[in-house]
Amino acid sequence: MKMNEGVEWAAHCAVILASTPEGYATPMSVLAEFHGLRPSYLAKTLQALARADIVVASTGKLGGYRLARPAPEITLLDIVMAVDGQQRAFRCTEVRQNGPSAVKRSLYSRSCGIAETMWRAEDAWREALARTTVADLVAMTLRDSPADALEKGITWLGNEIGRRR
Amino acid sequence: MKMNEGVEWAAHCAVILASTPEGYATPMSVLAEFHGLRPSYLAKTLQALARADIVVASTGKLGGYRLARPAPEITLLDIVMAVDGQQRAFRCTEVRQNGPSAVKRSLYSRSCGIAETMWRAEDAWREALARTTVADLVAMTLRDSPADALEKGITWLGNEIGRRR
Repeated sequence: MKMNEGVEWAAHCAVILASTPEGYATPMSVLAEFHGLRPSYLAKTLQALARADIVVASTGKLGGYRLARPAPEITLLDIVMAVDGQQRAFRCTEVRQNGPSAVKRSLYSRSCGIAETMWRAEDAWREALARTTVADLVAMTLRDSPADALEKGITWLGNEIGRRR
Repeated sequence: MKMNEGVEWAAHCAVILASTPEGYATPMSVLAEFHGLRPSYLAKTLQALARADIVVASTGKLGGYRLARPAPEITLLDIVMAVDGQQRAFRCTEVRQNGPSAVKRSLYSRSCGIAETMWRAEDAWREALARTTVADLVAMTLRDSPADALEKGITWLGNEIGRRR
């Protein structure tokens, strides 16, 4: 079981977009270069975020991406579901209804205990992701990044985004 | 993100093996037919369970599979890890260390907040799976199965396994 690799990129891009001053948009090329990613790969991830109403894209000379909603209103679960999909990791194929013990489908009224237990565990995972917002990720990034990396990053982004005015 | 489909088969097979009287082993062909599965697919799953010390295989005329440990000592997490692997679903590639903000690797002393949050959520999922044992799954199966399916299943398994003595 492996999550779409774009989830990591999306979370980091969301941190950058949440830290961009109001009125500025960040081009995809800047987000890609900042994280050392291929623009063509990142484009798909950003499109998924746009479809989920997490980012909005604008076109034109000052175009680029910005968050569609305030950072405290976007959770890590929103990002995971947007990029990795909404489907459960555990897919029940109802093998219990196969073979020599099978009875009429209508008699199996509820999902079986195995599937329910698997899905309850996934709910615990989703609830944990839903408790962290993009605003929390910004705070963690500020707390965890080496001071020199923060300074270099802020200067570079400021130049790239600021010079577009 | 999709879990290995063998996890469902493995959980159902574990329920059957936990319900088999002491001293009897259940052939792979019986487990496969009972769940309507291709024996060649199920073989791989059972081998994974054997490698993880969840089942043991015996050969010979009365050979087959049985649980390697008592059912209350095997958790659903054990089964998931055996069949789907031990790796985290979220793989951090440290994109934060790429691009124009990069500083010396040694300055990034800990995993970043995004990866830590993702892994904490996976821990919540694993803890939920670890709280359910194969003995619990047996109880759920007895509770949730249609009475006719239980009767047909027990009769068929009793004939298949019992006639081997």
